[in-house]
Amino acid sequence: MMQVTDIEFKSAEHVIEEIENMNVKGGSPFGRAAAWAYKLVSDQEKFTNVKDLKLRYDRISSEMLRLKPTMATIYNSKKLVYNLLDSIPEDTDVSEIQRQVSELCASIINYSLKAVDSLGEYGSNIIQNGDTIMMHSYSSALMSIFIQAASAGKKFSVICTESRPLRESRLAAKILQSYNVPVTYITDASVWEFMPVADYIMMGADTISCNGSVANKMGTALISKLAQSCKKKVYIASEIYKIDLRTQEGQPVVLERRTKDEVIQDGDFDSLDGIDIINQFFDLTPAPEIEGIICEFGVVPPSMVTSYWGKLEEIVAGN
Amino acid sequence: MMQVTDIEFKSAEHVIEEIENMNVKGGSPFGRAAAWAYKLVSDQEKFTNVKDLKLRYDRISSEMLRLKPTMATIYNSKKLVYNLLDSIPEDTDVSEIQRQVSELCASIINYSLKAVDSLGEYGSNIIQNGDTIMMHSYSSALMSIFIQAASAGKKFSVICTESRPLRESRLAAKILQSYNVPVTYITDASVWEFMPVADYIMMGADTISCNGSVANKMGTALISKLAQSCKKKVYIASEIYKIDLRTQEGQPVVLERRTKDEVIQDGDFDSLDGIDIINQFFDLTPAPEIEGIICEFGVVPPSMVTSYWGKLEEIVAGN
Amino acid sequence: MMQVTDIEFKSAEHVIEEIENMNVKGGSPFGRAAAWAYKLVSDQEKFTNVKDLKLRYDRISSEMLRLKPTMATIYNSKKLVYNLLDSIPEDTDVSEIQRQVSELCASIINYSLKAVDSLGEYGSNIIQNGDTIMMHSYSSALMSIFIQAASAGKKFSVICTESRPLRESRLAAKILQSYNVPVTYITDASVWEFMPVADYIMMGADTISCNGSVANKMGTALISKLAQSCKKKVYIASEIYKIDLRTQEGQPVVLERRTKDEVIQDGDFDSLDGIDIINQFFDLTPAPEIEGIICEFGVVPPSMVTSYWGKLEEIVAGN
Amino acid sequence: MMQVTDIEFKSAEHVIEEIENMNVKGGSPFGRAAAWAYKLVSDQEKFTNVKDLKLRYDRISSEMLRLKPTMATIYNSKKLVYNLLDSIPEDTDVSEIQRQVSELCASIINYSLKAVDSLGEYGSNIIQNGDTIMMHSYSSALMSIFIQAASAGKKFSVICTESRPLRESRLAAKILQSYNVPVTYITDASVWEFMPVADYIMMGADTISCNGSVANKMGTALISKLAQSCKKKVYIASEIYKIDLRTQEGQPVVLERRTKDEVIQDGDFDSLDGIDIINQFFDLTPAPEIEGIICEFGVVPPSMVTSYWGKLEEIVAGN
Amino acid sequence: MMQVTDIEFKSAEHVIEEIENMNVKGGSPFGRAAAWAYKLVSDQEKFTNVKDLKLRYDRISSEMLRLKPTMATIYNSKKLVYNLLDSIPEDTDVSEIQRQVSELCASIINYSLKAVDSLGEYGSNIIQNGDTIMMHSYSSALMSIFIQAASAGKKFSVICTESRPLRESRLAAKILQSYNVPVTYITDASVWEFMPVADYIMMGADTISCNGSVANKMGTALISKLAQSCKKKVYIASEIYKIDLRTQEGQPVVLERRTKDEVIQDGDFDSLDGIDIINQFFDLTPAPEIEGIICEFGVVPPSMVTSYWGKLEEIVAGN
Amino acid sequence: MMQVTDIEFKSAEHVIEEIENMNVKGGSPFGRAAAWAYKLVSDQEKFTNVKDLKLRYDRISSEMLRLKPTMATIYNSKKLVYNLLDSIPEDTDVSEIQRQVSELCASIINYSLKAVDSLGEYGSNIIQNGDTIMMHSYSSALMSIFIQAASAGKKFSVICTESRPLRESRLAAKILQSYNVPVTYITDASVWEFMPVADYIMMGADTISCNGSVANKMGTALISKLAQSCKKKVYIASEIYKIDLRTQEGQPVVLERRTKDEVIQDGDFDSLDGIDIINQFFDLTPAPEIEGIICEFGVVPPSMVTSYWGKLEEIVAGN
Repeated sequence: MMQVTDIEFKSAEHVIEEIENMNVKGGSPFGRAAAWAYKLVSDQEKFTNVKDLKLRYDRISSEMLRLKPTMATIYNSKKLVYNLLDSIPEDTDVSEIQRQVSELCASIINYSLKAVDSLGEYGSNIIQNGDTIMMHSYSSALMSIFIQAASAGKKFSVICTESRPLRESRLAAKILQSYNVPVTYITDASVWEFMPVADYIMMGADTISCNGSVANKMGTALISKLAQSCKKKVYIASEIYKIDLRTQEGQPVVLERRTKDEVIQDGDFDSLDGIDIINQFFDLTPAPEIEGIICEFGVVPPSMVTSYWGKLEEIVAGN
Repeated sequence: MMQVTDIEFKSAEHVIEEIENMNVKGGSPFGRAAAWAYKLVSDQEKFTNVKDLKLRYDRISSEMLRLKPTMATIYNSKKLVYNLLDSIPEDTDVSEIQRQVSELCASIINYSLKAVDSLGEYGSNIIQNGDTIMMHSYSSALMSIFIQAASAGKKFSVICTESRPLRESRLAAKILQSYNVPVTYITDASVWEFMPVADYIMMGADTISCNGSVANKMGTALISKLAQSCKKKVYIASEIYKIDLRTQEGQPVVLERRTKDEVIQDGDFDSLDGIDIINQFFDLTPAPEIEGIICEFGVVPPSMVTSYWGKLEEIVAGN
Repeated sequence: MMQVTDIEFKSAEHVIEEIENMNVKGGSPFGRAAAWAYKLVSDQEKFTNVKDLKLRYDRISSEMLRLKPTMATIYNSKKLVYNLLDSIPEDTDVSEIQRQVSELCASIINYSLKAVDSLGEYGSNIIQNGDTIMMHSYSSALMSIFIQAASAGKKFSVICTESRPLRESRLAAKILQSYNVPVTYITDASVWEFMPVADYIMMGADTISCNGSVANKMGTALISKLAQSCKKKVYIASEIYKIDLRTQEGQPVVLERRTKDEVIQDGDFDSLDGIDIINQFFDLTPAPEIEGIICEFGVVPPSMVTSYWGKLEEIVAGN
Repeated sequence: MMQVTDIEFKSAEHVIEEIENMNVKGGSPFGRAAAWAYKLVSDQEKFTNVKDLKLRYDRISSEMLRLKPTMATIYNSKKLVYNLLDSIPEDTDVSEIQRQVSELCASIINYSLKAVDSLGEYGSNIIQNGDTIMMHSYSSALMSIFIQAASAGKKFSVICTESRPLRESRLAAKILQSYNVPVTYITDASVWEFMPVADYIMMGADTISCNGSVANKMGTALISKLAQSCKKKVYIASEIYKIDLRTQEGQPVVLERRTKDEVIQDGDFDSLDGIDIINQFFDLTPAPEIEGIICEFGVVPPSMVTSYWGKLEEIVAGN
Repeated sequence: MMQVTDIEFKSAEHVIEEIENMNVKGGSPFGRAAAWAYKLVSDQEKFTNVKDLKLRYDRISSEMLRLKPTMATIYNSKKLVYNLLDSIPEDTDVSEIQRQVSELCASIINYSLKAVDSLGEYGSNIIQNGDTIMMHSYSSALMSIFIQAASAGKKFSVICTESRPLRESRLAAKILQSYNVPVTYITDASVWEFMPVADYIMMGADTISCNGSVANKMGTALISKLAQSCKKKVYIASEIYKIDLRTQEGQPVVLERRTKDEVIQDGDFDSLDGIDIINQFFDLTPAPEIEGIICEFGVVPPSMVTSYWGKLEEIVAGN
Repeated sequence: MMQVTDIEFKSAEHVIEEIENMNVKGGSPFGRAAAWAYKLVSDQEKFTNVKDLKLRYDRISSEMLRLKPTMATIYNSKKLVYNLLDSIPEDTDVSEIQRQVSELCASIINYSLKAVDSLGEYGSNIIQNGDTIMMHSYSSALMSIFIQAASAGKKFSVICTESRPLRESRLAAKILQSYNVPVTYITDASVWEFMPVADYIMMGADTISCNGSVANKMGTALISKLAQSCKKKVYIASEIYKIDLRTQEGQPVVLERRTKDEVIQDGDFDSLDGIDIINQFFDLTPAPEIEGIICEFGVVPPSMVTSYWGKLEEIVAGN
C-alpha cells in the first residue's frame, strides 16, 4: 500500500506558511492541509464567543484561497466546514462548535487518506498480467494503483512520458523501478509513436469538473485525444474530493500557467525580446473521452461523478 | 535570403571525417557533402585507368553509406554519379570521366543550394499578414520560408514547440527573433492546447518517401494527426533531393533512434535497471494528412512527389 | 436580467385561442400557458362535483395537445396537474381541489420564469472576456445568458447564423446590439468557414429527450457535428421543463415540418411540379456531442438530465 | 446536350464593358470572354508594329485582371496568349502574329465549349437508375451532367440546397424540372439531416487549385466535410481550365467576399451599428475529401489535376 | 408478446445439471436458473439450523459460479439472496429464512420474465413504419422488441448478419419470418456495405458493465464502431439484471473464448500445426457509442445504467 | 517464388469454355486467358483476308465479355490487341498481323506472370522481422509477397480472416503453413477485436479503378475503414493490369453479387419466403485509405496508379 503522509502541521499558521512555501503538493494534500488548518484552530485556540471563532475561520479560509484560488480541494474543505457551521444552532456553546469542527476535519483527513488506498485497489483490478500501460506526469493516485497491482504479483509494464517542463515522471519511474515494474521512458512528443504498443492509458487528475472533464498536467488532453484514434481506453485516477463544485454553476476550471523559468534554462536565449515563453501547466480532457474515473467508489463514468459527492459528504459527516 | 553555406571541404577524406564527427547536419548538407567527396576525388586525384577510378568512387560510397546508411541524400548523390558512370562509353578517357563527374557534382551542389531559396519563395507566398503558424523542431527549409516572408515585410507570428530532446527550436526562435517575427515558445505537450490559435502548421522533413509520407523529427506525426482534428492544414517544406528512392521498392524509411544521453541528465536516475530510455528521433507523417510539400517546384501534393524526381535529374544533368 | 412576460390570459379558452392563433412561442411559454389554462379554470369556474371538474380539465388537456401534440412542456404541465389530482383523496371538497391545482400551477409558472434567470447566470459564468461565441437561431434561454454576461460588463462577441427559413437570429442580433455586444452575422452555409474563429458554441433547445439529446432549430445538429471536427465545445441552454418524458419509453421526439411557404417566395418557381420543398424545422443533436446543458440546476452532463426532473417536481410541489 | 452560349461580343472594349457590368457569369465564360477580347483585337484592329500590338494586348490584360483579379480563367487565357507571343520569332510580321493569336483564341473558346459536354458525359456515366444526388448552388458543369443523364433516360432525383444568399439553386431546380428530374429543395442548414438519403454528392467549382482543392460557393466545404462522416462520396464537376496555376507557387486562392446587401433585406435591422454582415461567397474544399474531379479528361483524382493542364495546352495549341 | 419460458427445474441439483449440460442459454435464463436453485432448496429441503442452511446455499453458489464464473446474472442472484440473509436477524427461525429466500427468488424470477416484456414495448416504440433496422446475432430481448412492433402492425424490415461462427441469426430470421417481417440476410463482412441502407442498429447484450459498455456476440463492437462513421444510432436491448456489478470495482468483463470446433469444419485443414484458430466469442462495445440501452426502465443512457440497479433491488425486495 | 501457372489452353474455344465453366479464377488469370484466346487464334487459324481475321477476333472478344462483362483484365487484353490492330497499316499481310498479335499476346502473358514476382519482392521488403500482418480472403499477389518474405528468412506472422462465404483464406492459411509462417485464423466479425495486434494490413484486389480505389472481396472496405481508427496502414497488392480503364470515363466498377447458395446451407431455413439472402461478393475501398498499392512498379500511391498504365503499355509493346 502507498504510504501517504502529510506534513506534521503545528498550527493553522504553519499550514498557511507551508502552502505559501509550496511545500504542499497535489490536490489531495491541499485539501487535507486546509482541514488541518481548521482542526488546529479548533483544537489549539480559545474563543470567548462564536462570532470570534467564525472570524478566525474566515481569516484562514481567505488566506488559503488567496494563495491557491483555483484549488478545488481547499474550497471543498472550506465548504464542508461552513456547511457544518450553518447547521449548528445559533446558541451552541463555542467549545462544542470547535469540537464538532475538529471532528469533521479529522474525518475529512482520514477519508482522504483512505480514498487513495481504495481507488488503488479498484484500479489494480483493471491491470492484467502482460498489460502495457501508458501514463503521463506523476500522480499519487496512479502510484497507488501500480503499487497495489505490483504487490499483488501482477506482471505489467509502464510507458512513462517525461512530462516537461518539470519531468515529474522521473519520480514515477523510480517508484515503479523499486517495485520491479519495467518502465519505458520516452519524450512527450513520442506518445503517438508508442501508443500502438500500449494496451490502455492511465493518468491522474488535478481537478475534476462537475461534468466529468478532467484538468491535469499539460499533455493529458493531447494523449487522450490521440488515444481515441488508436482504439485505446483512457482511465483517470482521482479521489472524488478533487471535484470543483463551482463548475456546476458554469465557472471554468482555472488552468494554471506557471513561470517561464521552468521551461528554459540559462543560456537558452540571449534575450527574450519577441519570444513569449508560455508554461501552460494544465489542460482539460473532455469527459466523453474518458472510459472511467477510478475513484474511491469504484470505476465510474465521468458524467456520473458529481452524484458521488453527496455520498462523500455523508461519509465524512459520519452518517 | 537564407545564407546556406557548406563546410569548406579539403578532400574526399575530409568529407568523410566531417560526417564521422557529426559536423554535417541536415539532409541537404549530407547530399552536398557526398557530391563534394566525388567532386574532390575527381578534381584532385589522378588515376591511370578507369577501373581504379571506379574503385575509388566505390570506396567513398561505401564509407559514407556505412556512416549514414539511412540518409537518402547520400544515396541520391551516389545514384546520380553512378547513373552518369553507367552512361559513359567504356573507352572514354579517365580524365574525361573525372571532368564529367566533377561537373555533375558541381551541378548537384548548386542545385541543392538554389532549391532552398526557391522553396522559400513559394512557401512565403502562403503566408499572409496576421497569420499564426505552428512549427516544430528546426529546418533550414522552413527558415528560408520565414526569412523570405519577413524580408518581404509580412507580419506574422510563429508558435515554436521546444522539440525535445535537443530542443532545436531554440535556434529557430533565435533566427525568427533576429527578423522581428514574434515567437510563442511552448513545450511539446502543449501542441493540442495551442493548436486552435494557429492558422496552419509548417514543418520540415528529414526524408520523403516515394508515396509522399514524410520522416521528420519525433512529434511531427503527432502534430499532424492532431491538426486533422482541429481543421488546420499541414505543410511540409523540403527539397525534392530528400526523397528516398528505395522506398519505391517497399524499403521502409529507417527511423533513427539516438542515444539515451540526449534524453536524460546526470542525476535523473540512480540506476537505469528496469528503465528503458528510448530516444526515437524520427517519426513518419502519412501523406494524406499533408496539404502540400513546399519544394523547389512549388507547393505539390505529396502523392505526386516522385514525379518531380525526374525533373530534378534532368536539371542537374544540364538537359 | 431578461424580461420574460407571458400574455395576460383571461380564461382557459383564451389560452387555447392564443395557442391556436400561434401567439404563444417557445417551449417554456407553452408550458406556462398550459399551467395558466388549468389555473384559470380552477380560479374562475365553479363545479358542483369532482367529476365535472376533472372532465373540464380533461377537455382542456385534449384541446391543447390536439393543437400541439409534440410539445413536451404542455404534456409536462398536464402530467404535473394529473399527478396532483391522483394524489388527492377521493372525498376532498371540489373547491379544495381547485385551490390545490391553482397553487400548483402558480408554482409551475413561477418556477419557469425563474429558471431562465438562473440558467442565464450559470451560462454567463462560462463566458470570459474576449470570448467569441457562435450561436444559431433564437432562444430566450440563450438571450438570458448573453444579457447577464453583458450586464456584468463582460466583453465578448457573438457569431449569429441567419437561421433560414425564418431568420430568427435577426431578433437575437438586435438584442445583442442593444447590449453593445458585437455581432458577426453570417449565412447558415458559412458555419464551417467561421468555426475556427469561435471559442465555443451555445445554442438553445426546443425539446430535450431523456437521454440528453436535443431537438432544436434545423442546423443545430449540423453545427454540433462540425464542432467535433474543430475542437469546439457545444453548450445547450434550456430549462429542464423542456424534457419530453415520453422519450424515456422509446417514443421519438417528433421533429416538426412546417409549411413550404416559409422557404420560398412569390416568383421563385412558376410551378412546383416535380419540386418538393421540405421545411424540416427541427433536428436532433446527439447527447455525446454536448459539453453541457445549461439549466436552472447548473451546467449538467446531458446524460444526467432526467435525474433533475425529480428535483423540479419536488420544487414545484413546494417540498 | 447543354446549350452553352456566350454573349455576342462586338469588340475587346465590349468584352471589358460586359465584365464590368457583371453580365459575364461563371469561371468558364470569363475565360472565353478574355479569349474573345484578344481575338477581337487581333481580328478587328490594325497595328503598324509589333510593339504597339503588344501594348494593346497588355492594356486589355491589365484591364480585365483589374476588374477580376482572382479569376483563374482570365489569367489562364492571358498566359496562353503570352506563351504564344513569347514563342513567335521577333521578326515575324505583325499581321501574322495577329493571325496566330486569333487562331489560338478561337481554339481556346472552342475547347472550353466542348469541355462542358465531355465532362457532362463522363459525369452522367456515374449516375445509375434510382440514385439520389445532393448538389449545392448552381454550376453549368453540373447541369451538363444531369441533362445528359436525364436525356439518356436515367431515372434519378436531386436534392438541391437553396444556397443562400443568392439561392442560385432555384435555377438548377428549374432546369431539372424541365427535364423531369424530381427535385427535393431544402435549406442549407438541412444538409446534415438529409445526407443519409443521398447516395453521393456532386458540386461544381469556381476555381481549382494545383493540389486539387476546390474553391466553390460557400457551403461546399461544409457539405464535403459532413459527407466524410456519413459514408458519402463527393464529386466535383469542373473543366481543367479553372485551375489557378498561381497556386502552384504557393499563392492562395482568393476567396471573394461580396456585398452585405445580398444577405440582408430592407427592414431587417434599424441600424447596422455593431453588426458585421459578412457575405463570404466562396470556401475551399480539401482535395483528400474529393472522390474525383469530373473534367473533360474523365473522372480524375484531385491530386493529379495539374498533370492535365499540359494536355490542355497541347490541345488548344493544336498539337 | 414473447413467450419466454424456463426449463421446469426439479431440484437445485437439477439446475446445476442443466447448467453443466449447457441447456441453459442466455444471460437472463442463467440468472433465473440460479434463483430457482436457491428457491428449490428453500422449498424442498429441511434444515435443523441456520448454519446448515447457509452451508447448503454456499455449496450451490460455488457450484454454479464454478461452472459459469463470468456470468453476471448468476452472481447477481447470489448477491440478492445473500443480502437478504445478511439482513435477517441471527435468531430468526430457519423455516422463516427459507420462506423469505423462496419469496425473494420467486420475485426475481417473476421480475426477470416481465422485464423482457417491458423493454420489448419500449423498444417497439422506437420503431416507425418504413424503418430498416440492422441487427447482429440472436437476442431474446431484441426479439421481444421486434415481435411487439410487428404485432402492433408496424411495417419495418430487418438486416440480419449471419453472425459466425454459430450463425445464431438464422433463428432470428425465422422468428421474423413468422411475423412477416422482411429480412435481408448478409454475411458479417458485409455490414459496412449495407449500413447506409439501415436507419439504425439494434443489438442485444450478454453482460453490461457498470459504466454502460456492453459485452455481446463478437462483431457487436465492430458494427457499433462503423455506425459512428455512417451517422447511424446504436441501441442495445437488455434487462438491467445483466449488469456485472463486479466491474464497478474495476474487474474486467471476462470475454469468453470458445472451442475452435465451432469455427472450422472437418476437412478444412489437414493439420493445425502453426495455425491458431481463435474463437473469441464476445467483444465489448464502448458506452459513448450507444444511443440508449433499452431496458425495463425505458431507453436509458448507458452511463446511467447502474443507477437503475438500486430500483431493481427495491422492486424484487417488494418495497 | 510463387509458381503461377495457367491452364494449358488448346484453342480459343477452349479458353471460352474454361471461362464458362468457371475454371479460370482471379483477375490476372482472366487477363492472360483472354490473351491466350487471341494468341491461339493467331497461331492456329488461317485467314484469307484481314476482314475475316478481325471478325474472328471480334467474336472472341464479345464472347468473353459476355461471360465476364465486368472483368477489367479481359477488357484490357482486348484493348491492347485492338490498339495494335488499329496501328497496323491497312495493307499489311494477314499473316503478318497474326504474327504481331501473337507476339503481343505472348508479351502480355509473360508480363503478367513476371508482375506477380516483382510485386512480391517489393511487398516482401515492407515486411520486417517480428511483424504481424492482417490479411483478408485469398490473393495470389499477396501470397507472392508472403512467400518471398518467408523464403528470405523473415520471421513474421499473419492474421487470416476466414472470409465468408467461401472462406478462401483457408487456402492462404495452408500456403502460409507450408512456409512455416504462423497463422492466427479468426472469423470476419473479429477484425476490430484483433486489429490492435496487427502492425499493418495487406489485402489483394479484384479490380483497381482509375482513381486508385480498389474492388476486392467483401470485407476489404470494412477492414480498411476500421484500420483508419486504429492507426494501421492498409496495403493493396495488385498488378497494374487489373486497372479498369473504363472507370476513367465515370463508369462504376461493377461489384458482383453471387448466388445465395454460397451463403446458406441445406436446412438453414425451411423456406426463404420473406428472407432475402444477399451475397454481395465485392466492395470498394476508397483510395485515400490505402497507404500504397504494391505493384510491379513498386509501392505506389493509389492516386498515381493510372500513370503506370502507360508504362505497362510500352513494356508489353516491347518499346
